[in-house]
This record gives sequence, C-alpha cells and structure tokens, in this order.
Amino acid sequence: MRKCYFDHVATNPLHPEVLSAMMPYFKEEFGNPLSVYDLGVRAREAIENARTSVASLINAKPSTIVFTASGAEANNFALRGIALAKQNQGKHIIVSKVEHHSILNSARFLEKSGFAVTYLPVDKYGLVDPDVVKDSITKETILISVAHASSEIGSIEPIKEIASITKEKNIIFHTDAVASTGNIPIDVKELGVDLLSMAAHQFYGPKGAGALYIREGLRIVPLIYGGIQEGGRRAGTENVPAIVGMGKAAELAKSKMYNRIEHCKRLRNKIIDAVLKIPNVYLTGHPETRLPHHASFVVEFIEGEAMLLMLSMKGIYAASGSACSSKALKSSPILLSLGIPSALAQGSIVFSLGEDNTDEDVDYFINEFPQIISKLREMSPFAKGWGTKGFEEHGEGEKCYTNR
Amino acid sequence: MRKCYFDHVATNPLHPEVLSAMMPYFKEEFGNPLSVYDLGVRAREAIENARTSVASLINAKPSTIVFTASGAEANNFALRGIALAKQNQGKHIIVSKVEHHSILNSARFLEKSGFAVTYLPVDKYGLVDPDVVKDSITKETILISVAHASSEIGSIEPIKEIASITKEKNIIFHTDAVASTGNIPIDVKELGVDLLSMAAHQFYGPKGAGALYIREGLRIVPLIYGGIQEGGRRAGTENVPAIVGMGKAAELAKSKMYNRIEHCKRLRNKIIDAVLKIPNVYLTGHPETRLPHHASFVVEFIEGEAMLLMLSMKGIYAASGSACSSKALKSSPILLSLGIPSALAQGSIVFSLGEDNTDEDVDYFINEFPQIISKLREMSPFAKGWGTKGFEEHGEGEKCYTNR
Repeated sequence: MRKCYFDHVATNPLHPEVLSAMMPYFKEEFGNPLSVYDLGVRAREAIENARTSVASLINAKPSTIVFTASGAEANNFALRGIALAKQNQGKHIIVSKVEHHSILNSARFLEKSGFAVTYLPVDKYGLVDPDVVKDSITKETILISVAHASSEIGSIEPIKEIASITKEKNIIFHTDAVASTGNIPIDVKELGVDLLSMAAHQFYGPKGAGALYIREGLRIVPLIYGGIQEGGRRAGTENVPAIVGMGKAAELAKSKMYNRIEHCKRLRNKIIDAVLKIPNVYLTGHPETRLPHHASFVVEFIEGEAMLLMLSMKGIYAASGSACSSKALKSSPILLSLGIPSALAQGSIVFSLGEDNTDEDVDYFINEFPQIISKLREMSPFAKGWGTKGFEEHGEGEKCYTNR
Repeated sequence: MRKCYFDHVATNPLHPEVLSAMMPYFKEEFGNPLSVYDLGVRAREAIENARTSVASLINAKPSTIVFTASGAEANNFALRGIALAKQNQGKHIIVSKVEHHSILNSARFLEKSGFAVTYLPVDKYGLVDPDVVKDSITKETILISVAHASSEIGSIEPIKEIASITKEKNIIFHTDAVASTGNIPIDVKELGVDLLSMAAHQFYGPKGAGALYIREGLRIVPLIYGGIQEGGRRAGTENVPAIVGMGKAAELAKSKMYNRIEHCKRLRNKIIDAVLKIPNVYLTGHPETRLPHHASFVVEFIEGEAMLLMLSMKGIYAASGSACSSKALKSSPILLSLGIPSALAQGSIVFSLGEDNTDEDVDYFINEFPQIISKLREMSPFAKGWGTKGFEEHGEGEKCYTNR
C-alpha cells in the first residue's frame, strides 16, 4: 500500500544528510562540550558551528541563539524568562487566542503567579488585528507573544506590523515560529521581533532540538538552572548530536527553501482544489496568507478522528487539530476562536506536505478522500439529508471558511 | 597513541546496542507519539517500553517516570515543581552544600522567589549528617534535596537514613541520582525517596534524555507547560530516539551492573593505589562509601587544568571539578565545603572508569601520571621544596583526604 505522510506539522522525517551529520557524535565524538581536552573541544566547536547555521537561517548573530530541547521549552523560556526579568516594570502580558498550548499554558501559569494576561481575539482566518494589539496595551504591559504561523490553521500573522507597535511602545515582542522556521523565509531583523522560538523537527531536523532567538542585550531569566552551558542561559549537558542535526537541518532549509516551498505549495494547492469540491467542506485559516505546505479544513457531519483512522487505513497520515492535543479529543479552541461552531470544529482535518511527498501521493489521496467522506457520512447520524440541509442549516455565512 | 577515557562522569560513550535500538526512530519510525495513526502508535509504544525499562532499573512503577531532556532539567523540575506545589504549607527548603549546580542554582532561584533555603554542611568526606538534617527542619520545611552521589568526589550520601527522617516529618525528599543511576543499584522503595533525578548519558545512554521519578500520588507543578505529553507533566514533542536509547541503556545497566561494578572497581582501585603513592596527593571523598568507578584527588602545588592538559597530550581524559563548571576555572565549592584549602582545591583531578577501559589503559596511566606530576611540580613556583614543606604546611590534618 502507498504511504502518504501528510502530517509534517506533527513532525518531519529526518533528512538523511542530517542523520549523517549527527552520527559521529553518537560514536567516536561523544565528548562533553565542557571538557577541556580535544574530545570536548570538538564537541564544543560542533555546537558553535550549528549555532552559526541556525542563526544564519533567521539572519541573526550566533550569540543570539540559545539551544533548548524543544519548541515548547523555547516558548516557556521566552514567556516566563521575560516575565520574571521585567516584572518590576509591569505585570501585564498579551498573547493571542490562537497560540500553541505551550504559550497559552505558560500564560495561565503566569496568571496564577500574579500577572494579568490579555488573550487577543482573531478574525475568521485566525489573524490578529494590529490595531487590537495596540488598544490592548496598558502602562503595565511588558511582553506580547503572537505566533508567526499556526500549525493548526496555517495562517501567517502580521508580525512585522505588530513589531512596529511594540517597538514604539518599548514592549518586548516574542513570536512562536516553531511551525514556520525552516519552512518559510524568516529574518528576525525584518520581522523586528525580540525573541523567536523554533524546533528542528519541523524542518527535517531531529526531535530534542529547539532554540530561542534572544535579541542582543535582552535580559532573560533562565528556565533551567545549573552549569554554564549556553552562556549560563540554559543548563544541562548539551545534546550534541541533536544540536549538530539542527544545524545541518538549518543549512539544508536555507539552501532548499525556495524549491521546497514551490514543491509543497503546488501539491498543497492540488489538495485544496480537490477537497473543496467535496460538498460541505470548508478551508480553515487564510486562503493566501498561510504556510505553503499547509491545508486545513473542517468537514461537516464527521468527526476528525474518524477521518484520520479511515485515512490511515489507506496509508494516508494527517492530523486533526494540533498533535499536542490530538489525543485530548476536544473541539480545538483555535477553531472555536475563529467563530467555527463546535460541532463543525469536530470535523477538523489538517494536511501538511513535505519534500518527500509526490504528485502520485496527492493523486492517490484525491482519489481516496471523497470516498472516505462519503462512507463516513453514510454512517453519520448527523449527516442525514446533508445534501441540501447542511447548506441551509449553516447558511452562506459559514462558507467564509472556504476560499471559494 | 593509546586513548584512555577516564571521564565517565562527564559523559559516557553510547553503547552500540543503545545506538542500534535508537536507529529505527531516526529513520522509518519517525512519527509523533501523539499522532493517532500507526506511526504515532508505535512511537508511543516505544516510549512506554522505555518507561518500563527505566522504572525497572530503580524498582519503580512505569507511571512514576517522567522523561526530561537532562538531569539538570529533572533537578529543576523537582525543586521548583515541589516548591510551587507545596508553598501553601511552608516556604523552607533544605539542600546540601555539595549539590550539583542545577540544585544549588535552583535553590538560589527559589530564595529570590521568597523561599528560605538551608544549605547543609558536610563532613570531610562530603557526607551529610542525618542528625544535622533533622536539626535543620522547621515547621516551614516542605522539601529536602540531597544528592545520592557526587560526581566530583564520589561519596554516596546516607539517603535511606535521611528518608526515614523526612518520612516521619512528612516532608518531601528528592535525591539527585544523576551520577549514581545505572552505575550502582538503586531501589526507590528501599531508599524511601519521593523524587529521584537521572540522566541516560551517565550509563551509556544518549545525551538529551533524563527522567524524574515522582512517587505515586505526589502533586508537582510542571516546569515546561504545553501539550499533554508525559501525562501533562512535561510538554514538548518527545525525543523518541533518545527516550528509546535511555530505555535500552537502562536494560543494559540492570543486566550488566554487577560485572560493570566489579570491572570498574578493580581498575579504579589500581588507580587509587598508584596515585596515592605520589607524595602530597590526597584522595577526596569517602574512601569506601563511594561510586565504584570513581577516583578523585587533590594534588598539591599543581593546578587541575595543567594536569588535564598534560594528560590529554598523552591521550588520557580526566576531569577537574565537575564538567558543568570546568570551564569556569574557580576553586570547586564542593571541595571547599569539605574543608580543603582553596590552593589545594585548585589541584583537583577526577578519574572515572567505564566498561570500555582496560587494564592496559590503567597500566599506561599509572606509568604516565607520576611523570606528569613531577614535570608540573618542577615548573610550579608553589612547589619549591615541596618534598618536606608541603606536609609541614598543611599538617597531618589535611591527610584526612587520603585513605591511607
């Protein structure tokens, strides 16, 4: 059976060149980077080379990159590290409602610790309005965090516009760019952000490697205390192979970015065109301003979970909501923030493409998916008479989730 | 040139069987453990198998193991997670003076956050006196953390005795067992601890994998917020290959423990016997109650750094102080806590053996090391007339650091 991995936002297969780059550090080059002898020196050099590659991917200086073990750790580090460092200047933080759990739950933790948090609303595409950001700022605001792109709905937020506001108001601005880094061009200077989170496994690098970009001169309180690793900003024996892998993945992402984008976008558009031909299926997220490898939908009268299982029986791998909550089986709070009714949000399905996907994969999918929908709707008690009733019930208003 | 890696407390080479176990998860089995399809299911099963192996190594239930990215993260998680969970019952914490930086610096962070911290003194072997622990407890005490064994001086602390006190007083007890787990038998039930930290790279597992044992029913606040990974106790996409590697390393550690201990202890004793024949060299840590693969000394009139460099030129890899601070070039606070004078503490050197070391390695070292000491002492301005003066200056009292 054909295997079509369309879940690159959940995680990516490791690029073979990344694994090759990592292998010596699992074998003879196993030294601790803090050791003074040659084995340690070479491990340290490998880390610094990786830091240069990761920095180069986002047009930053190597010294601004702190390696972490995941994007989630980078997000926790950013929010809590800045909150603690700046709490004497104010205790108000602003995040959007469509942030990843690692941001939302860090914000809730800070609320319990005495910070006030504003959760920004979004429009029907999941986009934050910079004017609303501006209006939410108080004299107490020390930090704003808005994701660069959502792994669930693909929309790309107006980071540059928000940054121009935060700069003017002298407020620290963090962006969770875990879903976007390595997948679309990122230039931290052009974006104007103070902090930016990323994760290697989102761009064919290894799991267990993430990083936080911290603008030069910005003070931050560590999340993990201990030794002098990462300039005292993040303790723990460095995961040398994973860091080396992240460096190699960053190099590849930079050199292959244009080709990867073109390849994925073309396949992705084929998927969108085909899926939207199925009645009562709506695109979620912005039709244009979205990750090039990302297609997300809500399918009326069916649960996402059922689609995932039927798809996987055909060798097609997809997601429903974000991977980090897919086992939780609740309506996605992100989809609800867009104004999608709870029942419809249950029918969430996300396809994310990668360089390993082919036209044959997509053609196979396009042939199988409508049949799966039909079968599931036949079994669904909610779908009785959907052929006409569905449109009537939800009306034209709901069709805003499609780009048709 | 012969290569003698005697720095197994800094990090271990990966066991080939561990790497073999990890490899599929870098290749075809790259799924996100939270994905619902087969790739995700298999990744999840792999993590749960690893959890069972790690739990088995310390005689715990699998559900008590939370994977982290490092021993340092486990230590931060334990201290700060319990401090936050228990702060309504009191704000006093007790740690020893010979803890790892990840404990000491977490404790200092908690001090800044309004907690009171008692730093327990130690005897000349670096051992905590359970009676002193008892006397340090106040009505406000919520948490005590004492390392199981020190990577710097090898001494094994009286954890069981301390646990009987904490149990009686209903105080949470954490032990940093990063240096000991996988190297000596550990049974959390017998030790009686509530929390225990470990790191895979200390027992031939990969860097980037650690774990915290959390006794059943114990509430702890997460250090890293986000998705539902690790039962909501530690967010971030799981580093599947590293976790699988930790599981395999735990299995091997359990099955090979007796042989590894016998092998390392024999070689280690040869090193101690030979090194203590050199004048004005003293063993640090307890002569008997110590890690079986660990030999640590202070060498008078010489700096540890100089020894390390000369040794490495002969292909011999050792440490001076802990790896996490070896680049900081300060007198080790742990050695100072033992009452060792600052100048003498500068001459710290640590040899830690592994299953990869041979009698030939040790014989080579025994031949080379005295010559290195002689050469360095010839160059040292402090060593003038050391032959007699050294003993006179420091007196018999200092000889307590030797087991002669």
